[in-house]
Amino acid sequence: MTFRTDILVPSNRDVVTRRRFLTASAGAAGAAAVAGRARADTLADVPPRELGAPLGGRSERSKFVKISRIPEAGPGVRHVDPSDAINSKTPLGRLVGSITPADLHYERSHAGVPELDPAKHRLLIHGMAKKALVLTVDDLMAMPSVSRVHFIECTGNGWENWKQADGNLTVQNTHGLVSTNEWTGVPLRFLIDLVGVDRGSTWMLAEGGDGAGVDRSIPLTDEILDEAFVAYGQNGEPLRPAHGFPIRLLMPGFEGNLNIKWLRRLKFGDRPWMTRWETDRYTQLLPDGKARQFQLRMETNSVITSPSGMMQIRPGYNRITGLAWSGHGRIAKVEISTDAAKTWKEAQLNGPVLPRAQARFQMDWDWDGKPTKIVSRSTDDQRNVQPDRKSFIAQMGTNALFHYNAQQTWSIDETGRVRNVLA
Amino acid sequence: MTFRTDILVPSNRDVVTRRRFLTASAGAAGAAAVAGRARADTLADVPPRELGAPLGGRSERSKFVKISRIPEAGPGVRHVDPSDAINSKTPLGRLVGSITPADLHYERSHAGVPELDPAKHRLLIHGMAKKALVLTVDDLMAMPSVSRVHFIECTGNGWENWKQADGNLTVQNTHGLVSTNEWTGVPLRFLIDLVGVDRGSTWMLAEGGDGAGVDRSIPLTDEILDEAFVAYGQNGEPLRPAHGFPIRLLMPGFEGNLNIKWLRRLKFGDRPWMTRWETDRYTQLLPDGKARQFQLRMETNSVITSPSGMMQIRPGYNRITGLAWSGHGRIAKVEISTDAAKTWKEAQLNGPVLPRAQARFQMDWDWDGKPTKIVSRSTDDQRNVQPDRKSFIAQMGTNALFHYNAQQTWSIDETGRVRNVLA
Repeated sequence: MTFRTDILVPSNRDVVTRRRFLTASAGAAGAAAVAGRARADTLADVPPRELGAPLGGRSERSKFVKISRIPEAGPGVRHVDPSDAINSKTPLGRLVGSITPADLHYERSHAGVPELDPAKHRLLIHGMAKKALVLTVDDLMAMPSVSRVHFIECTGNGWENWKQADGNLTVQNTHGLVSTNEWTGVPLRFLIDLVGVDRGSTWMLAEGGDGAGVDRSIPLTDEILDEAFVAYGQNGEPLRPAHGFPIRLLMPGFEGNLNIKWLRRLKFGDRPWMTRWETDRYTQLLPDGKARQFQLRMETNSVITSPSGMMQIRPGYNRITGLAWSGHGRIAKVEISTDAAKTWKEAQLNGPVLPRAQARFQMDWDWDGKPTKIVSRSTDDQRNVQPDRKSFIAQMGTNALFHYNAQQTWSIDETGRVRNVLA
Repeated sequence: MTFRTDILVPSNRDVVTRRRFLTASAGAAGAAAVAGRARADTLADVPPRELGAPLGGRSERSKFVKISRIPEAGPGVRHVDPSDAINSKTPLGRLVGSITPADLHYERSHAGVPELDPAKHRLLIHGMAKKALVLTVDDLMAMPSVSRVHFIECTGNGWENWKQADGNLTVQNTHGLVSTNEWTGVPLRFLIDLVGVDRGSTWMLAEGGDGAGVDRSIPLTDEILDEAFVAYGQNGEPLRPAHGFPIRLLMPGFEGNLNIKWLRRLKFGDRPWMTRWETDRYTQLLPDGKARQFQLRMETNSVITSPSGMMQIRPGYNRITGLAWSGHGRIAKVEISTDAAKTWKEAQLNGPVLPRAQARFQMDWDWDGKPTKIVSRSTDDQRNVQPDRKSFIAQMGTNALFHYNAQQTWSIDETGRVRNVLA
């Protein structure tokens, strides 16, 4: 028997040399947290090995993992009869990394979740174009495709904290209407070419096939022509019904409601259609009494997911971690304050940081046990900086409902209890 | 009501200018595929809108989506009693993008799936180090972490085609022992620093907590020290029991069995432990009768997932798509031949292409309806090229069982039926 380790085994010298460069600060902090728990040099303190259950067609979650979204009937209306629910929030405080499991992706549906038959579903593409087409799902899946990791965010995400702060809210309550998946589908440009959209067409109507028939007018900017696609895949598998099965529009960086689910129609024209979703529902009442239409792009945002609302921490080492995202592009920087926004320190970003996707950040922190407030602030690669609450309210007033992206502050009392506060 | 479209609405001129640069070739190919299906300029051919079911805590799959892994009792032994299954293969032919849903990630387990209690589970870290530690799962989750998208591949992936080709196999049968998830956990370097591993330690033993107690000796090369981590998260959520809940070792680019599931022990030493998994199970019988040990790195590989085994295609436009991966690093190039490896054309790679992760590739193809063979060939950024079957067998012989990475050929007959063949 040949013992081949020629490539794999380094000399002791190499290993030692590298080891000297271990990050001393992080190591010291971590050591402080766990030093008291060292017990033994044998397996005596490790549970015995366990026999297992048979393998299956799917890997289900552990019975020890209780994790789910929270259905709500509107801002602050929790524990509702399921038939009254209009959205369901992602458990951000329980998740790690950047990808959201497909079944925990947040949901906002205006007429429940239709269970469409993909064999019968059709997409009509028409309007100001050389021809009209009615496509099947199989047609779409046979076309050139792209896969992109992107967040989708409900334009109402954050509205819980617009006017006041309920101290009993978790980060799932305050920020659970944003999620990140890998989406797969056909570039909008390909479909535009397929039907020969007229040069004069500057707007597109996208309409959903659920009972509410949400339809939105979308301006055909270069950016949207470059980035939008008709998606049929989510984290590698077919879309789930709650997220638009069999097809939805993907509008990276823009309001969640523009990512039309159960997509049945794309119509091209030269002006917006002024549907009720853009003349009524998704308008912003500004401080001067005017209403703003078509505020489509989601803002530069971030939130600390741990420690966060209703969590309990202990003095000493604590890892601060959270998520940052921007509809404008890529997150460039996240800063964290552990002294109520007096001083700031740059957090580590987990790479690769992708455009219009949530980025995971973290920072080491030694808590001295005194009451304080922690807060995060993101900056994107277009130099947009997430505003503090005071300047956000000064600009937007308190009559609007959407696009809340003020910095989120968590207070920590002397017992280590974490609470939602305004600043 | 103010109509604000100052930023969002482009001039007609801008849109027209951009539209001229639509990729004509891709557009023409797609148009050919669907032109016959254009029907109407109204919603008459689109099914009516549908009322929906209530929102819930999780988004389940559509009842129309039948998708699952295939449990097997070994190479070629399908349709087994679940209690005899030793692995379960990912449905590569049904998936899109690069991420594998957590519940469809392939599985190879040597003593079933233990359901470990995370509150009771412990990780012992000891051996040639200043101190020993017994860590809880909460300890690990409080430490600095990384999230990385990586493939894991069973070293036996591909063995179905080592000696002969069963023409009835799908790509799930031939290549379903590889999957890609976003994994989150604590860098190995951090733990090494925490216990103060001795300078003279060049090997690490990792042991699992299942009934089989799989344990492997891992050389502490610079690369492994840089890349390995102890994972507790998978696609954003806690690991699933089949994939090591509550913790597993992540060894990016290396044999699946080194990514020890249900991890209970890391021990440091100055030589390999020569466990039965490395003296017997995972050794390679070479043509000269010698056995190779510690062939740890997974090779440069690729496979066309559509069209693939047992699929049916029609003459005209067909999108060829598949996955490529390499344990050495990042995929640099994928070439596709549609004439039985006589001529090759470079495929499009979906970006971003990440190191030691599966990359999605695709290419437009007009099939003339004549029998042919299609095959893919990947090259990584270390200039490793996936071998053809002939040169692979010339080097490795037919006695070995592991690390099969020869190019996969699919034959297509005059009826459009796709079959698994050797070349």
